[in-house]
Amino acid sequence: MKLTVGVDIGGTKIAAGVVDDAGRVLARLQRPTPARTAEVAEAVAVLIEGLCEDYPVAAVGLGVGGFIDAERETVLFAKNIGWRSEPIRRTMESRLGLPVVIENDANAAAWAESRFGAGSGEAFLVVLTVGTGVGCGIIIGGSIYRGSFGTAAECGHLPLVPGGLRCSCGGDGCWEMYCSGTALENEARKLAQQGAADSLLRRAGGRIEAITGGVVTAAAAEGDTVAVGLMRETAWWLGRGMAAIAAVLDPGCFVIAGGLSVAESLLIDAARESFLSHLPARGMRGEARIVAAGLGLDAGLIGAADLARARASR
Amino acid sequence: MKLTVGVDIGGTKIAAGVVDDAGRVLARLQRPTPARTAEVAEAVAVLIEGLCEDYPVAAVGLGVGGFIDAERETVLFAKNIGWRSEPIRRTMESRLGLPVVIENDANAAAWAESRFGAGSGEAFLVVLTVGTGVGCGIIIGGSIYRGSFGTAAECGHLPLVPGGLRCSCGGDGCWEMYCSGTALENEARKLAQQGAADSLLRRAGGRIEAITGGVVTAAAAEGDTVAVGLMRETAWWLGRGMAAIAAVLDPGCFVIAGGLSVAESLLIDAARESFLSHLPARGMRGEARIVAAGLGLDAGLIGAADLARARASR
Amino acid sequence: MKLTVGVDIGGTKIAAGVVDDAGRVLARLQRPTPARTAEVAEAVAVLIEGLCEDYPVAAVGLGVGGFIDAERETVLFAKNIGWRSEPIRRTMESRLGLPVVIENDANAAAWAESRFGAGSGEAFLVVLTVGTGVGCGIIIGGSIYRGSFGTAAECGHLPLVPGGLRCSCGGDGCWEMYCSGTALENEARKLAQQGAADSLLRRAGGRIEAITGGVVTAAAAEGDTVAVGLMRETAWWLGRGMAAIAAVLDPGCFVIAGGLSVAESLLIDAARESFLSHLPARGMRGEARIVAAGLGLDAGLIGAADLARARASR
Amino acid sequence: MKLTVGVDIGGTKIAAGVVDDAGRVLARLQRPTPARTAEVAEAVAVLIEGLCEDYPVAAVGLGVGGFIDAERETVLFAKNIGWRSEPIRRTMESRLGLPVVIENDANAAAWAESRFGAGSGEAFLVVLTVGTGVGCGIIIGGSIYRGSFGTAAECGHLPLVPGGLRCSCGGDGCWEMYCSGTALENEARKLAQQGAADSLLRRAGGRIEAITGGVVTAAAAEGDTVAVGLMRETAWWLGRGMAAIAAVLDPGCFVIAGGLSVAESLLIDAARESFLSHLPARGMRGEARIVAAGLGLDAGLIGAADLARARASR
Repeated sequence: MKLTVGVDIGGTKIAAGVVDDAGRVLARLQRPTPARTAEVAEAVAVLIEGLCEDYPVAAVGLGVGGFIDAERETVLFAKNIGWRSEPIRRTMESRLGLPVVIENDANAAAWAESRFGAGSGEAFLVVLTVGTGVGCGIIIGGSIYRGSFGTAAECGHLPLVPGGLRCSCGGDGCWEMYCSGTALENEARKLAQQGAADSLLRRAGGRIEAITGGVVTAAAAEGDTVAVGLMRETAWWLGRGMAAIAAVLDPGCFVIAGGLSVAESLLIDAARESFLSHLPARGMRGEARIVAAGLGLDAGLIGAADLARARASR
Repeated sequence: MKLTVGVDIGGTKIAAGVVDDAGRVLARLQRPTPARTAEVAEAVAVLIEGLCEDYPVAAVGLGVGGFIDAERETVLFAKNIGWRSEPIRRTMESRLGLPVVIENDANAAAWAESRFGAGSGEAFLVVLTVGTGVGCGIIIGGSIYRGSFGTAAECGHLPLVPGGLRCSCGGDGCWEMYCSGTALENEARKLAQQGAADSLLRRAGGRIEAITGGVVTAAAAEGDTVAVGLMRETAWWLGRGMAAIAAVLDPGCFVIAGGLSVAESLLIDAARESFLSHLPARGMRGEARIVAAGLGLDAGLIGAADLARARASR
Repeated sequence: MKLTVGVDIGGTKIAAGVVDDAGRVLARLQRPTPARTAEVAEAVAVLIEGLCEDYPVAAVGLGVGGFIDAERETVLFAKNIGWRSEPIRRTMESRLGLPVVIENDANAAAWAESRFGAGSGEAFLVVLTVGTGVGCGIIIGGSIYRGSFGTAAECGHLPLVPGGLRCSCGGDGCWEMYCSGTALENEARKLAQQGAADSLLRRAGGRIEAITGGVVTAAAAEGDTVAVGLMRETAWWLGRGMAAIAAVLDPGCFVIAGGLSVAESLLIDAARESFLSHLPARGMRGEARIVAAGLGLDAGLIGAADLARARASR
Repeated sequence: MKLTVGVDIGGTKIAAGVVDDAGRVLARLQRPTPARTAEVAEAVAVLIEGLCEDYPVAAVGLGVGGFIDAERETVLFAKNIGWRSEPIRRTMESRLGLPVVIENDANAAAWAESRFGAGSGEAFLVVLTVGTGVGCGIIIGGSIYRGSFGTAAECGHLPLVPGGLRCSCGGDGCWEMYCSGTALENEARKLAQQGAADSLLRRAGGRIEAITGGVVTAAAAEGDTVAVGLMRETAWWLGRGMAAIAAVLDPGCFVIAGGLSVAESLLIDAARESFLSHLPARGMRGEARIVAAGLGLDAGLIGAADLARARASR
């Protein structure tokens, strides 16, 4: 049985793990992402080498939050890490002496959910990671769908509100501006500033800037009225965006992953209701299932490792 | 060389043609669509039989404006024709004694453009038919993409305006409510009612209800200021919707077909500008080409015939 | 003590009453509005004459749902009745031999609420009649505010959604398309068509077309979940529109009248919350009170009668 | 003939002038606004005293960009200057030994246009100052309309886009986010970043951050295609917002003032077209005139001085 290492390289932390061919994580290392862009690759390599000391590793997969070229050689742009045109695959192969593959982090997570998680067996699957933003991975016929230039499945940037909130991608009214932990946080802070979210303010120790998406999500899970209202709004947008995706892709299943999952049933039930009410020609067509993710926050790491396995077998 | 018949079955007219394996139309018959739903199948059959008298036809392809099941056996719902759960493939095979395939009309048109038209050679292609509404066909890796339930590529129903214009699909703010001949017509008539579109009113013989999308398109092509303004608005929406599709699918090429093509360069140039300005992370990713259709209004017919050819060869 | 007659002339019914100088209705007559426009004036006159037989009437006030010229002589346009450029004041004075005044129905209702109802004593008052549409009357410094051309306070047509639902006024995204019994009805019927409003469908005897704004309002008042959800959405829009009015007029008080008042506290409490969350610079400015109407559906009639009193006294 | 001093206190500069009873500016002094809030009042006083040395000044009027209480005693909140609950009227009277009045700067400008400028003689007038944001003053029956709490005419914060751009007032979709020099600047910079505004970039010396609303306005006045397009969009919003105001106030005239006036006819002609197309029930009602301001950037100063005159006469 071959083992591979998967690494999830995010703007906040780097998580690496040894994964077997059933998607199980045998060992795990983690560290904060270095603030200096130039130090990130070294930090990733050190983590991997640490795992290689104890396990026979056949290949390495890197999941990166950013745009990757169609050939899966270069990270074109990873905003939170600072990489632009970074030939990370080759660099890392030279450094490690192992086969390396790179993939968008949301694609890697989708791959993992498709192989080992809640989307298992689905021929047309969309995995949405609702966290700081909205990550998306599309699995068609057992493969990750990457599009013509390698940058498909950037559904968080669906332009759903003309004249809407400005996104860092340059667009206005991007889906993730309304349907993410960041959106929750912004709306909650605005209410707090207006004196209309005292319960959330208490949970944040009285400091408005300590009200985060996580605080709101936890409060919603416990039934806080204001938080539930905010979560319901997020779910409304989640459903509307999924209807947009269905108009294009008509998937059989949506898997909802990411940090808002503490309020899981609240979010998913309300999102399903919204999805159906926005679905074009509802009642005269099939309706996709909507389910919670099966692999939790390890999905990206597991998916990256599993993608490396295929390369190792060649 | 085998010949096949393709039929484009729309709400207004039925067009049938004998097509060779290079996509050439050798003969063509056409008639208005019968007002009574029960008479449509018979009318289609008579047209086909007329063509079969003069040509050796190996198979028949039907392009239908409506939702078709995943197995391509039944028309689930064709609003303009009146079919619901119509097992038209089997009915027609029994009647004609020939292999018959059915396909969504926009998918058929996309197939034709992909094989013989402006999208030739593109691995990731989206064909948009901007007419009464917005039809869409997606070609991935040389195949029509149909999704899990057979109803993919209904991009005309992308929900791009929250609280927006109500669509016959039940949704609000569907793309085609803003980007179609119907939208052109509605906006032009409103202006005329307000006394602000005299030039268009003159073209329509002084009758507001005679101002159609076609009248506006023709006027725009000749430089009429009001019509050009309306066309520019349509192009703005066309570009914004293509950016939405690009966020999901990242195609290499968009082909623009349909009735608004008289004002071709006007529409497409302005739509490209809008597309680029709405494209997420523009400048750090590949940009799809946007080109005019190559086959004109015959695309649906040619595509249906060509899809039949594959079946005939089995 | 002088008595006057007030008449509320709507598209559905005509209500007339004898009113004293304290705003009390001493007698009341009512009938359906004639379907033929030409018969409306006669029907109104007959009602008034009926009341004059039993009471000494000094003057008559007519409240009309439509646009009235700045001189208050002519009804410019009353869509539901069919009047265009109708010199109804003069016609009715000749017919009745009594002084007659005419006023927009929402203005008349606002006047009544200002004099005898929930807005008593307010120097800057806005009265909103949320029914089929949104009627509005503005009282500034003890007078009805009519604007330059007589057509001020048409707040139901505030354009709050770019590209939004088309209104009969020609505009898109008018407030009343989102915040009225009609909006409630449309949304409820759409849900019912999708099989998502069974409880409302039962209340309507199983017929979708029997689901009205009234059915939804009553269901909401009794706690029906779907209806409460729809009412909450209406309230969200009510609050947002009031914030728009506050940005212009900065009134001290809003009075909410009209047919949605069965669900009174539900509507008004949620609308107040929405109003405050949309109020520009909340926390650094005064906040208008929001209260329920005091005169119920008689407000228009009472207001028209009271406006006639002033004329009678000259 | 009495003379008074008017001062326009903005976030960038303080302008003071001696004004006669015909609205003529006899002398003028100006300086940058001190960065420290605590020094602003002193700086204003010094300017006034400078003018008083040469002219017999009877009273002083201060126009302040901010919210002022209903009694016109205290500046509740002036974001750009830093004042909160600042009792500036009393402070300045003590310091100067002269009668002092304070007014919102846009109200003062509206007053000036009403008395001496383009709105002269209008009973129902709205003056819009389109600059960094959208300032608004309303004149009804020869008086400034201030509302119940002193904060009427904050039309720049009309909420015209649900889910729209976030404004510093806390709201989303405020009018001024779409219709101001700031909006022009943001849109132009976005285009430049995408490589689609080379002509504007050249005018700004190649530095994106040097593209300002002023650069775009000047370029538009000279026919630059990109700038004209941006200006046309601004005008579309200007017209839509005026239609919103007309739905509430039905004024007889709008006066357009402020920094975008270099592109005057371009802006105003297109805004008029947009206004009419958005006006509810157009064709069945009076239509407000839309004209350019008559007093240029001195309007605020002149208006403040003239308001002081009334006080001086008591």
